[in-house]
Order: sequence, then C-alpha cells, then structure tokens
Amino acid sequence: MSPLDLPLGPGGEFDLIRAIAERLGPKGRHLGDDCALISVDGATLVLSTDMSIEGAHFQTGWLSDEEIGWRSAMGALSDLAAAGAECLGLLAAVSVPHQAQRDRVVAVMDGVGQAVAACGGAVLGGDLTAAPVWALAITVIGRASRPASRHGARPGDGLWVTGQLGGARAALAAWQDGREPAAGLRQAFARPAARIAAGQWLVQAGARAMMDLSDGLAGDAHHLANASGVALDVNLDVLPVAEGVAEEGARLGRAAVELAAEGGEDYELLAALPETFGASEAASFQSAVGLPITRVGDVRAGAGVVLHRAGATVELHGFDHFR
Amino acid sequence: MSPLDLPLGPGGEFDLIRAIAERLGPKGRHLGDDCALISVDGATLVLSTDMSIEGAHFQTGWLSDEEIGWRSAMGALSDLAAAGAECLGLLAAVSVPHQAQRDRVVAVMDGVGQAVAACGGAVLGGDLTAAPVWALAITVIGRASRPASRHGARPGDGLWVTGQLGGARAALAAWQDGREPAAGLRQAFARPAARIAAGQWLVQAGARAMMDLSDGLAGDAHHLANASGVALDVNLDVLPVAEGVAEEGARLGRAAVELAAEGGEDYELLAALPETFGASEAASFQSAVGLPITRVGDVRAGAGVVLHRAGATVELHGFDHFR
Repeated sequence: MSPLDLPLGPGGEFDLIRAIAERLGPKGRHLGDDCALISVDGATLVLSTDMSIEGAHFQTGWLSDEEIGWRSAMGALSDLAAAGAECLGLLAAVSVPHQAQRDRVVAVMDGVGQAVAACGGAVLGGDLTAAPVWALAITVIGRASRPASRHGARPGDGLWVTGQLGGARAALAAWQDGREPAAGLRQAFARPAARIAAGQWLVQAGARAMMDLSDGLAGDAHHLANASGVALDVNLDVLPVAEGVAEEGARLGRAAVELAAEGGEDYELLAALPETFGASEAASFQSAVGLPITRVGDVRAGAGVVLHRAGATVELHGFDHFR
Repeated sequence: MSPLDLPLGPGGEFDLIRAIAERLGPKGRHLGDDCALISVDGATLVLSTDMSIEGAHFQTGWLSDEEIGWRSAMGALSDLAAAGAECLGLLAAVSVPHQAQRDRVVAVMDGVGQAVAACGGAVLGGDLTAAPVWALAITVIGRASRPASRHGARPGDGLWVTGQLGGARAALAAWQDGREPAAGLRQAFARPAARIAAGQWLVQAGARAMMDLSDGLAGDAHHLANASGVALDVNLDVLPVAEGVAEEGARLGRAAVELAAEGGEDYELLAALPETFGASEAASFQSAVGLPITRVGDVRAGAGVVLHRAGATVELHGFDHFR
C-alpha cells in the first residue's frame, strides 16, 4: 500500500502519522500498521517498537521497577501477538534518570527479561542512556508465515475478543483516586500478558484481521474498521468484563462495560473471524490457549463503528495521546 | 558467548550492562555488542537500538528539527556500518512534548527518513507518544553475510580509522562557549553519515574486528581491546583531524589530536585489519568509498590501550553516560 493513502482511523495520533507518511513518501513504508514486515529469504519477520515514558505511561510510585519493565515489554510484545507471530526477542533502549540507583535499572531490565522469556524469546540487545526521565523503548522481533494485520476483515465476519476487558482501566481509576487497586485489577495493569499463543492459534483458525486492544475497544475498533474498509457493530452488553471492574465503575458512576470498552492496555486481541467460527471453535480455542474468546459484534459493509448498549447506540472513545 | 563472562571494557555504562547481563542469565544474549544478530533461514539480520533524548544528546536550540531526526537516525545506522551490514530500514519511536507543534514532529521524521534513505533503507514503522521531553528511539535493521563485531582483532593487525575525527566535538565546544560553530564542524555534528559502504568494503577486505566511534577513540578503543582480548597501541600524532578542530582546541588550550581522540559522535569506523592491508589497499578504499582511511596503531598481545603522543604516553577518556 502507498503510504499516501493509508486508511487510518480518526484521532490526533493518526492525523500525525498520516502527515508523516505524506512527507516521507517512498522513504516510509507500512506506517500506521501495528507491525513492520520484512521478507528475508522466504521468512517474514515482524517488528514493532513502543515507547513507555514515566509520567505518560506509568508512575514509578504505582509499580515496582520489575513491573515497569515487564509492562513496557509486554505492551510491545502484544504487537507480535496481534500479527499471529512467534517471538524471537527484543531490544530495549532505556533512559535512566541521573539520580537513579543502578539496582533499579537492573530490576527494570529483569522485568523486561521475564516478559520476553514468558513469550519464548530473549533480550537481544539494547542501549542505556542517562536522561531526565525514565523511558523504555522496546523493539520486538518475531516471525510469522502469514502475518495478520488490521486489514482484511470482510462483511459477514464475526468480531471476537480474547480474555476479559477493563481490568487495567479499573486499576488506574483506583490509583487516580488515591487507593490501591484490588489484586486482580492491579495484576491486569502491572503484569499484562501478550497473547502470543492466542494470536498464532487465531491465524491458524483463519483470522482475517487482528489487532491488540492497547487503546481500548471503543477506539481501536475504528482503526480496524478503517484499515479493512468495513463497518463494525459492537454489542457492549456481551463484553467480557474482568472481575472487580463493576465495583470501580460504580465509584465513578460508570457502567462496567463502559470501562471495559474505553479502557486500554488490557492487551487482549480483537479479531475478525469467518462466520464459520462459532461456539465449538471458541471452545477449542479456550481449551488450547486457556483463555475465553467472546463474540462481541459483526462486520458489515460500510464504514465506522456503532456501539450498541441495551438497545440504543452509545458514544465512547479510546485513548489518544494527541487528542 | 555466555552473557556471564562478557569481556566488556571499563566504565559505568559497561558495569551496568554487565550487572544486567548477570541478572538476565539465559534471558539475555549478546548484551554489550553493538548489534544483535538473528539468523533466519541462512540470512543473518543485524539489529541495534539507540535512544537520543533532549538535554542529554541534543539541545533543540542548536539543531533544526530535521537535523535532530537525521542525527538520531545516523547514530543508530552507524551500528549497521560497524557490522559491515547493508541497511534494510528502521523503526522510530518518538516522544513529543505536549506543547510541540505537529509540524515539528513531521520535520523530525523527515530528517529520520532522509537519513535512512541515504543508507538505502526506509522508515518501516514507529510509535508516537506524548511525553515531557523529546526522545527518539531508533531501531535499525540490516543484513550481513559475515557481520563484523568488536571481537576478533589479533596481535599483528593494524588499527585503522576512516574519515576525519574531532569535528562533532569541536562543534559542541563552540556551542557550549555560546558561539555558532564553523560550517564544517557544524555539519559534522548535525549531519553525520553512517559509514555503511565503508563498513561493507572493510568486511570484504578482511576486517577482523570493527566498531563505530560513537564515544570517542580514547574510550572506544578500550571496548575493542577488551572484546578481542588484545592490547592496542594508538599513535595520536597521526590521527586524521578534521579541519577547524585545531582552532577550537586552541580556545580550550587543548591539542587538536586530543579533541579528535576524545570526541565522540563522529561515527567514523575503527577497524582491525590484517597486516597485509597497507597503503595500496588504503588507496583502493579511498577510491571505492570516497573517504580516507588512516593507520593509527597496532594490535598486540596483552590487555589495555596505550595512547602515544610525541614519544610519551597520555591519558584521555571517551564519553560515558554513567561515569
């Protein structure tokens, strides 16, 4: 695809990516996708990079140093899951405040190492630099025979999500309210898991389009719809909501499904699967991968995303750094 | 090599890398090398990541936005040159201060795109995030049939450097003194070139060990000596010094060769070449690559680096973020 006609979704971040792609012309390729693809002697390598910065992505007071490393790495590894790729490893560029103790850097990298090892890879390299704030830029490298992307959903496909949503968002709400989140919610935020095995299984099962829910279903669904050139109907009433989200929602005066739809960073997968994928395939998925998978909507001809709740349509938004 | 017995040089940054490698154990591989190597179906991919942060690596007042992008990208691309790799492309994770205009982000990425295109690659992907400071994490991807590294220099080899040294350091001295550097010095700092063609040529010519001079010859020579398990004699009297460095040195009361030996970020290559590489091979290099190459020392059995100047030995240091 030419970078000049990227079918990106709305939002400040995507406007900016579009402006960059226009300026770069042929000097840029695949901009706006979750992953870069490189073909080397028959193999397709899948690469993605993600930056996490203190103050923007995490507060050092909420998480242990090991958790900061784990979470930053898993956020990047999740892009490999979205491509249905196996994980080869990652590179970590870390900036460390001048006054930080060395033990803290080692603990952050320990968390990064645990995360990539849990996905079957290793830390292959990195860069250390002293700077005013903590920043981790994680670049992941994977391999896929048929990498999935946001493109390819077709009218008639079912729209599915893995796991349960809203846990990370609810944990954030608790911290922002000055409370320690419940253990399960805290785990969802501090120790997310990239759905590597799930992504590979779903590609094998014929997934037409896939992405990870890093900015929340309400926002990310638009990106999949735009990339695939289709419309999506999402039924919020059936969203799989993580335990404990309802309680945090009640404190905010919000329904649990709203938090589940808006909350990013659960790193579950959103997949468009052929209509033939049904309850029995979902049971096979759960038995193979150990996660539930839930049909949350439909793909149809057209454009845009309609969120349905209790018979009406609702407006919700995902997270956008540049809104 | 086991990450537990990395033959790294001295210095705070390398102490920290060693501590990380020890903690990671088998979860880390090749830590401390310039590049990560991944073998895929017979091809060897070469990857490296580099973080540049406002205030630590550049001041936005000194450089245009395009130059910030160019320089950050070339610093990372230089690691591909050191491996003798061809350039496939790069991924750029960029954090942007909230108040920055969008045009500035596009200009930075334009510089990144120009740099990678000059090396024969393209921008393959990235990540944009809002954060308190400008930060660019560039991950480069290349390919080499026989990648060079810091390991492999042997007693009897000659030690050579490409191009001319000290220009970037002298530009920095001018800015720090509140003056605009001379055009050639400014160019060396703002528009360095990764020596991709030179690196490939030198691997073909039998280079035993190679690295890029990102932290200055006086410091980087230690890394090559330690990685290869050899001693190096460097003759500062013959260092190829860039035009204009002597003038800046005089203002600081320093000899030009001292600035050339201490100054990082010229991104020239340091190579150990077999004794058979001599004046006629150097002339072939210059004619093929368009750069001079100068023999600046010898590899011998032992450990450590001795810097010779006017018949005496001198002590100089390269740059270390964590000293």
